[in-house]
Amino acid sequence: MTLTTTTPAADALVIIGGDAAGMSAASKVRRVQPNRQIIVFEKSHYTSYSACGIPYYISGTVKTSEELIARSPEEFRTVYNIDVRTMHRVLSVDTDNKRVKVLDKEKGTEFWQQYGQLLIATGGKPYCPEHITGHDAANVFGVSTLKTGIKIENFIRDTKPKTAVILGGGYIGLEMAEALLIRGLNVCLVNRGEQVMNTMDPDMGTLISEAMRNLGVTLYLEEELTELENADNKVTAVITNKRRIEADMVVFGMGTSPNTYFLEGSKIELGVKNAIKTNAHMQTNIPDVWAAGDCTETLNLVSKHPMHIALGTLANKTGLVAGSNIAGEAITFPGAVGTAVCKICSYEVARTGLQEKDLIRLGIEYVTASTSSKTRARYYPGAKKITVKLLAEKNSGRLLGGQIIGEEGAAKRIDVLATAITHNLTLQNIIDLDLSYAPPFSPVWDPVQTAARKLVKDI
Amino acid sequence: MTLTTTTPAADALVIIGGDAAGMSAASKVRRVQPNRQIIVFEKSHYTSYSACGIPYYISGTVKTSEELIARSPEEFRTVYNIDVRTMHRVLSVDTDNKRVKVLDKEKGTEFWQQYGQLLIATGGKPYCPEHITGHDAANVFGVSTLKTGIKIENFIRDTKPKTAVILGGGYIGLEMAEALLIRGLNVCLVNRGEQVMNTMDPDMGTLISEAMRNLGVTLYLEEELTELENADNKVTAVITNKRRIEADMVVFGMGTSPNTYFLEGSKIELGVKNAIKTNAHMQTNIPDVWAAGDCTETLNLVSKHPMHIALGTLANKTGLVAGSNIAGEAITFPGAVGTAVCKICSYEVARTGLQEKDLIRLGIEYVTASTSSKTRARYYPGAKKITVKLLAEKNSGRLLGGQIIGEEGAAKRIDVLATAITHNLTLQNIIDLDLSYAPPFSPVWDPVQTAARKLVKDI
Repeated sequence: MTLTTTTPAADALVIIGGDAAGMSAASKVRRVQPNRQIIVFEKSHYTSYSACGIPYYISGTVKTSEELIARSPEEFRTVYNIDVRTMHRVLSVDTDNKRVKVLDKEKGTEFWQQYGQLLIATGGKPYCPEHITGHDAANVFGVSTLKTGIKIENFIRDTKPKTAVILGGGYIGLEMAEALLIRGLNVCLVNRGEQVMNTMDPDMGTLISEAMRNLGVTLYLEEELTELENADNKVTAVITNKRRIEADMVVFGMGTSPNTYFLEGSKIELGVKNAIKTNAHMQTNIPDVWAAGDCTETLNLVSKHPMHIALGTLANKTGLVAGSNIAGEAITFPGAVGTAVCKICSYEVARTGLQEKDLIRLGIEYVTASTSSKTRARYYPGAKKITVKLLAEKNSGRLLGGQIIGEEGAAKRIDVLATAITHNLTLQNIIDLDLSYAPPFSPVWDPVQTAARKLVKDI
Repeated sequence: MTLTTTTPAADALVIIGGDAAGMSAASKVRRVQPNRQIIVFEKSHYTSYSACGIPYYISGTVKTSEELIARSPEEFRTVYNIDVRTMHRVLSVDTDNKRVKVLDKEKGTEFWQQYGQLLIATGGKPYCPEHITGHDAANVFGVSTLKTGIKIENFIRDTKPKTAVILGGGYIGLEMAEALLIRGLNVCLVNRGEQVMNTMDPDMGTLISEAMRNLGVTLYLEEELTELENADNKVTAVITNKRRIEADMVVFGMGTSPNTYFLEGSKIELGVKNAIKTNAHMQTNIPDVWAAGDCTETLNLVSKHPMHIALGTLANKTGLVAGSNIAGEAITFPGAVGTAVCKICSYEVARTGLQEKDLIRLGIEYVTASTSSKTRARYYPGAKKITVKLLAEKNSGRLLGGQIIGEEGAAKRIDVLATAITHNLTLQNIIDLDLSYAPPFSPVWDPVQTAARKLVKDI
């Protein structure tokens, strides 16, 4: 079959993916270049929604899925003159001929689209154990796109499940545990590691596991999915290497990988976990091809190694940088230190920088200590427990990592540590910081400084 | 009269003032030097209490005055072997003969106390318009020591006042307004400037004035106290240059000055507002004499000029540094950037660095912008308004100041700006920071980054 080829203006910008990274870039280009042709292919019905908000929609904390949408395709078309084509999936990229092959999902037809410049912003996809029968049953869910979020919400509303098994104890797994607890389900969480949240050190992970149990989640640690008992497109139980757990629904929270499978044979260079390699301008190795968001590698500013992190902040930033450069402004994305934060009911968890296993792997000599203090003056009502763990380079005292677990008011303190790590501050620098204090906000020594005071003695 | 002279061990440490700075130093010296003689003269009955907590005790948020006390004189004596002498006021310092003249307030006797080393940590005292008759009436209060806090609480409990006039719209004035509102009083606040909180720029001050009015405080701006109508040791009305305001009680919140009047003739060098000049080790110009806390100057790290700030954080830090050096450890206090935070009912106010009037006075060319955004993802319940104002050096983009007004979750974000200012970060550095994001904690771009993005365009 010979496909039709759509030839746009020579400098047309084609963007694959209409969420955070893609639409940040599109909006930036539009601001700088009011007349440029911008075409966006988005495989779903939705643009610019908050994927991070999906668990809160499922929990009912956010009432409608529409609230998660920052800007609709219609708004992009009419207000911004951006040619957003929803329900269009890009099947492959032909960089030699500067064109992409597109499937119009509604019409069922395929065509070639020429581009002047191309931005790939296809995001990530949740890991799904496709070798296990039942992985695609009607009551088994990944959590990634708004569409999957709506599917889960509809399933809960319509079938009123009583028990859920979550597979995987990362951010998504924990946030989904919160959501399903709020919806009144009995929640079991199966985790391969000895503690949930493996982006935290095991001692901090233990505290999170305890917190999850306090909330009523049944944790099965050091267990692995082996089988899904299923019949008639419905899973009835999760089988692990240790037990059988009955389930009305199953949620995968086993991490995400970059959505780059369609780039096979495109000559676009991939790196860690098949994420797209870019330079600091978000350019790939192929001229006129850019990439941004969860489908790309990110430079870890502490280890100096590339990593793959799927995070809304990075998607927005790299989208903006890609858009700026595509529009002729030369700004750069320096990389990240791996800051992340998560709320699970009344608990707050945050981390930044490297963790012990990273430091051991990199052969960096380090010291570490953790301290527990309060989020407010000890006598001020609502003062909550906060535990801060710091990791610092052995001789220099340079901060390398920080982890926080606590209740209300704890987590956002990670930002001072992220700033400190990015700019090579030492523990003494942190102690010397003039941080804000009043009894409703902090003890006199902020908890991050109390932790630094303890650890500095070991330097 | 010939006074008796008490001669202690040759290396005895005498500390004047038993609150944050003095007792931080004493505790530090005790940890390093278990056998050293340490004598503390404290003019009140109390040691180591949170002066910052007094408004919350008056409001009833903190139930008892005891809760504000971290460690009692008795505990210092018995557990730490620190010879704390309460109700002892130091009247003068004779540096030539290394001795201080002390009044035993209970016995009414005076004596000379020799010292090996001396630490002055006498704090600040609230400004009181002593030229105005009635300033010392029974229903007129300053807010500084725990004793004055207890006096106010007793007065409210016993006389059930209905109306209060607060003179001065700084932190203490605003926190006392909150406290008295909570206690059910009608509160008027008289402020000399055109907006309250003159440590913020007038445009931000306007927002605070609005917030105060929303809370039910009657504000009289650009007005000055001229007279206190009084009879029988009781003020009945405050007279300003514009009106007469009836009052059951009057509170002074007109700032504090260093408590150094007793150093006249001591040869100890004073600086800004008669605060004691020290080096970074907290040594004064006189050998073996140290100073710490609210009675000292602080180096402003942005202007490079000395300033006077009375803040619990600085008192604790400089006390610790003085104690370390007195005990033979050579650590330094680098200075501060003027970070402060304040809660007034549901409103949060924070500031750091220089403000416009400082920059104009210093002749520094600057750009400034403010933005309003939300404390959480816009769709997440409890997302509150936050306004961030940034000031940056004109050509370099180096951050010079930050001011925040908002509701729950707003103020503590000042810490990232304080860290940025201390380490000479630019607006672009702030945009590039990997700050934490999840919908319950922040929009994708943290409000401080949104402000930096707006202002960077003007560089």
